[in-house]
Amino acid sequence: MEKISFVNDYSEGCHAEILKALIKVNYTQSAGYGLDDYSIKAKEILKKEMANDEASIHFVSGGTQANLTVIAHLLRPYEAVVACDSGHINVHESGSIEMCGHKVMTVKNKDGKIDLQEIAKLLLTNNDEHTVKIKMVYISNATEIGTTYSLSELEELSAFCKQHDLYLFVDGARIANALMAKDNDLYLKDYARLCDVFYIGGTKNGALLGEAVVFKNTKLAKGYRNTMKQHGAMLAKGRLLAINFLTLFEDGLYYKLGDHANKMAQEIAEALKEKGVSFMCESKTNQIFPIFSKSVAAALSDRYELGIWEDLDEQRAVYRLVTSWATPKEDVMRFIKDLKEVL
Amino acid sequence: MEKISFVNDYSEGCHAEILKALIKVNYTQSAGYGLDDYSIKAKEILKKEMANDEASIHFVSGGTQANLTVIAHLLRPYEAVVACDSGHINVHESGSIEMCGHKVMTVKNKDGKIDLQEIAKLLLTNNDEHTVKIKMVYISNATEIGTTYSLSELEELSAFCKQHDLYLFVDGARIANALMAKDNDLYLKDYARLCDVFYIGGTKNGALLGEAVVFKNTKLAKGYRNTMKQHGAMLAKGRLLAINFLTLFEDGLYYKLGDHANKMAQEIAEALKEKGVSFMCESKTNQIFPIFSKSVAAALSDRYELGIWEDLDEQRAVYRLVTSWATPKEDVMRFIKDLKEVL
Amino acid sequence: MEKISFVNDYSEGCHAEILKALIKVNYTQSAGYGLDDYSIKAKEILKKEMANDEASIHFVSGGTQANLTVIAHLLRPYEAVVACDSGHINVHESGSIEMCGHKVMTVKNKDGKIDLQEIAKLLLTNNDEHTVKIKMVYISNATEIGTTYSLSELEELSAFCKQHDLYLFVDGARIANALMAKDNDLYLKDYARLCDVFYIGGTKNGALLGEAVVFKNTKLAKGYRNTMKQHGAMLAKGRLLAINFLTLFEDGLYYKLGDHANKMAQEIAEALKEKGVSFMCESKTNQIFPIFSKSVAAALSDRYELGIWEDLDEQRAVYRLVTSWATPKEDVMRFIKDLKEVL
Amino acid sequence: MEKISFVNDYSEGCHAEILKALIKVNYTQSAGYGLDDYSIKAKEILKKEMANDEASIHFVSGGTQANLTVIAHLLRPYEAVVACDSGHINVHESGSIEMCGHKVMTVKNKDGKIDLQEIAKLLLTNNDEHTVKIKMVYISNATEIGTTYSLSELEELSAFCKQHDLYLFVDGARIANALMAKDNDLYLKDYARLCDVFYIGGTKNGALLGEAVVFKNTKLAKGYRNTMKQHGAMLAKGRLLAINFLTLFEDGLYYKLGDHANKMAQEIAEALKEKGVSFMCESKTNQIFPIFSKSVAAALSDRYELGIWEDLDEQRAVYRLVTSWATPKEDVMRFIKDLKEVL
Repeated sequence: MEKISFVNDYSEGCHAEILKALIKVNYTQSAGYGLDDYSIKAKEILKKEMANDEASIHFVSGGTQANLTVIAHLLRPYEAVVACDSGHINVHESGSIEMCGHKVMTVKNKDGKIDLQEIAKLLLTNNDEHTVKIKMVYISNATEIGTTYSLSELEELSAFCKQHDLYLFVDGARIANALMAKDNDLYLKDYARLCDVFYIGGTKNGALLGEAVVFKNTKLAKGYRNTMKQHGAMLAKGRLLAINFLTLFEDGLYYKLGDHANKMAQEIAEALKEKGVSFMCESKTNQIFPIFSKSVAAALSDRYELGIWEDLDEQRAVYRLVTSWATPKEDVMRFIKDLKEVL
Repeated sequence: MEKISFVNDYSEGCHAEILKALIKVNYTQSAGYGLDDYSIKAKEILKKEMANDEASIHFVSGGTQANLTVIAHLLRPYEAVVACDSGHINVHESGSIEMCGHKVMTVKNKDGKIDLQEIAKLLLTNNDEHTVKIKMVYISNATEIGTTYSLSELEELSAFCKQHDLYLFVDGARIANALMAKDNDLYLKDYARLCDVFYIGGTKNGALLGEAVVFKNTKLAKGYRNTMKQHGAMLAKGRLLAINFLTLFEDGLYYKLGDHANKMAQEIAEALKEKGVSFMCESKTNQIFPIFSKSVAAALSDRYELGIWEDLDEQRAVYRLVTSWATPKEDVMRFIKDLKEVL
Repeated sequence: MEKISFVNDYSEGCHAEILKALIKVNYTQSAGYGLDDYSIKAKEILKKEMANDEASIHFVSGGTQANLTVIAHLLRPYEAVVACDSGHINVHESGSIEMCGHKVMTVKNKDGKIDLQEIAKLLLTNNDEHTVKIKMVYISNATEIGTTYSLSELEELSAFCKQHDLYLFVDGARIANALMAKDNDLYLKDYARLCDVFYIGGTKNGALLGEAVVFKNTKLAKGYRNTMKQHGAMLAKGRLLAINFLTLFEDGLYYKLGDHANKMAQEIAEALKEKGVSFMCESKTNQIFPIFSKSVAAALSDRYELGIWEDLDEQRAVYRLVTSWATPKEDVMRFIKDLKEVL
Repeated sequence: MEKISFVNDYSEGCHAEILKALIKVNYTQSAGYGLDDYSIKAKEILKKEMANDEASIHFVSGGTQANLTVIAHLLRPYEAVVACDSGHINVHESGSIEMCGHKVMTVKNKDGKIDLQEIAKLLLTNNDEHTVKIKMVYISNATEIGTTYSLSELEELSAFCKQHDLYLFVDGARIANALMAKDNDLYLKDYARLCDVFYIGGTKNGALLGEAVVFKNTKLAKGYRNTMKQHGAMLAKGRLLAINFLTLFEDGLYYKLGDHANKMAQEIAEALKEKGVSFMCESKTNQIFPIFSKSVAAALSDRYELGIWEDLDEQRAVYRLVTSWATPKEDVMRFIKDLKEVL
């Protein structure tokens, strides 16, 4: 029997509707490099969704590509981006931002989130030609550990950035999960209003692949297609990415999938809490970080794949459990049952 | 009525078998980043196909990505690659090789192909620390204008490169068309034997997307996965690319599609020749470059999309006609008929 | 006996006045990194010299450094600079511009100079996101082969650049020789008016080291000190460079030295012409390119170092003879005498 | 009256012997780009000094240039260097290492020095293709805060690096001060034995400018002259740098100057200790970091320039006092006297 994996949210293919849509238009000829009608239509739908007609939208194939092309595009050579120490661009992209010539400055995260006071301190000491010039703030929402920013937090960050002439860039690889988190009050239109640039992640929310990079306005995006091409981020069959987004956004499927992923994780979290399990942090999204004994994990290991986030001591570890748009409810039920037996 | 386009070979989606294969495994969970079973299997099939067990194979999403990651990976900072003036990396990749820090030296092409004597001359004048150090020869097969290298030509080039301690890199975006060209005597096993690295193009031969980068041995490829990741060229759902190649190579579909594309173009070429039309160059592949009057093109323009390669004078131009794995035979027949009427 | 070298114009140290000036202030303490009083004063003198109060002036230690920092500073990642095929940045800087991420596009030189018609052609074909975007024109004056631009030529080039929204950058490694060339009508004030940025070469005209980079205005120069620092081009003891320029420009020494270097070469040229020797090109500066027999060169080789520019055939070559600010008149006289004997 | 500055060790020109040496050879012609006889001789002297015939030595004009060219030369694109958080390459070089494409990983410094345990931890978590690959350890000796490594510490670090296949690179901008620190047991021959590459700083120890980069062997240095040229770090009049090092090392002047600088600072330190002043760290070199009241600094501010290192509170700060090879003994005496009056 195959094990059920809770190690990430990109283990499966894509929502069935996307494959249907691909089949439907498979033999239709269209223009290359994202200049096709599907791309045009997908962008229109997204602009409506975020109530911003000025936005400039571009589809790329993955998150690292989105991050590096945006940052390479907006920063001058000696400018730097500041991120949490836990930020994806700082840790898990094999130095892609540095490859583009830019330093990633870091501040200690608070529950996966960035702290304005810490950025303000950095700005004070990075102020001459011997240091890099900080010009961008990078955050992820949902964060690397599943926590989320509220509307007021993003507003405060946006105001801070404006005040200090910094770009605000939100990595939305898991923006669907943030959008559908319980008590969320931060919508696509807010991102399009408060950020200079952000991206809407497809890969981790039901797309075969693809992220939609959104610049607040066309001025910021000027030349971005050159940047994309230069980094090999412009697919010849660009419509492939557009069709993913068309399908996800035509009837709100994107939100449903994010909601499903969140609910699956939260059901597991509830069950764990009932059993008195504590968590590394409070997450309302599709990633949860319970702390339990390694013997518990061992007892489940023939049926489930679980990832360790951090070793605490010989007995215990923080585990990282991730559910996805495709996680079957029955798998979650079975896992909860099995989990309760061994806890 | 939709126009029929002969402007490129990436206007359609992908071969139907690939979509079927994607549907089949859609909900199966698998490892991310190209470490899944489909990737392992696809690589095994390709190694057999090229009779090279030592080869190190990696799937990336497009040709520019393949080119830039390979070159960034193999060259030291001050080393350069030499290509034809018409080479894709020199003209049509928005400076991606320079973005990676390397100069593209050029020599004048002869029918789209590189000339050893010209490279030898460059080596003589680029020989100290004030010049770049030439370390790689880049060619495409089929070339940008549809011509092809023979086995003896590649052997000669390979020997030259070994003698001068240069890497030989073949861009195989249209390798399928080269492999199936009439009188071709150069097979995948020859590439794997004579080149240091080459890639097998999927995007332009029936794949939804994807190119298979092949290093001659694992030593050359050491660290290439880091390079891929650093350039955003490692898809989270790497299996997507593998499934394309699995389907294309399991039963020889790849060759059939290349053959079809070639035949479609050659039928048009034959018809043109019958009418006395001359060509910019002799192509045996899926791109042909006939020279005819602009009035001919105008007369066809309501039913067909044709690309101009080069304006010759007020009356005439070189046209670029491209067929693909998906070009319907009946479209070609109709086009020939319509063409003959207006020639 | 030491041979007399005519192979370049940086074989000697510096004008004696510079060493005197260095000794004079040697133990005076001053601010680092070019923020000292000597730097301030040298910049003021240069601004007066070029009648441009808005100029932003910076001292760097060599020509390659000047070229790469200026180009890295002004271009966005996908933008390119166009130069003559013979341009120093294209041939003799070990790929420094590409190291900074930018493509050097080339056009065939006409007597060492750039041709507007050729640039215009390049602009026509480099016009989408698959190509680089040409954003700067780079020329040298005097050129690599000692020829010079006239005022009307620079005006025409400047107008062309404005029209096409291109930066105009003049490499002035040998600007002293251009300024003092017979019939020259192009002065520092014209450079400061017609270029976006240029540099005044010290190394090849009597300085121990140093080039003065001049941006037309402070807006273009914004952040350039960061770019300098980032490339290791900001000397801790920046005053060293300033004192060189102070000494050279306080009383017109710079012009005298350029004039001397030119005259020495022109005297040799006159003598050669008298003997019927022809030249590769017409140079009025300190580099001349006579064509003579290799046996002539051989007969002089125990007393003089001469550089070959280009081998013409088994018998003859183009030689490159260079004089400098320090070339003694008696050496030139002796060389002419010896030369006449063997011609 | 001019203030006496204790803010850095590059406020003055150079040792008088260097200017004499420059004058002596000023009109002698020599080869360019570091291929002259002075460079050859200076390298021979340095090789003897460090008892390493295999070493490959190169002169560059400043510390940032030394750091960036060495790191750009040795690392492959996805490789990173690890340094202290306080490391010069991390903080004060305007992102030059990132400009070259490499991430600077940091560990918390202990008294300005690096901690092996912390590097070992980083190696554990940076171990796949999503992270950068750590390939070099960078330290400074003397450190940024004047502390020094002992022989046993460098041996331990060297062994650690060998074990983990890491390059060891020592930034020796202030190596003279380390070499002459009280109780030092670490000599040039040890650096040449234990490091892969290091540099001997001239700028901060009596040279007009210049640092001598030393690779342990020629294999590591292969192509470094290209790297230098590519970064504008190869002076046309390379002999200028060589003459600085020749003069400094011919008769041990280098050591005398380092010793003088140290002694001047240590005399101030002694005086401060006598008055009960405490220090941020224990330094035996030419930089000391006493903690005293801002009113003390204010009382001295009309006669002395003192730098603040860190503000502690409204009343007190850590000050950074730096002496140099040129600091007159009488200035130190006067400062001590004035200081004692206000303490």
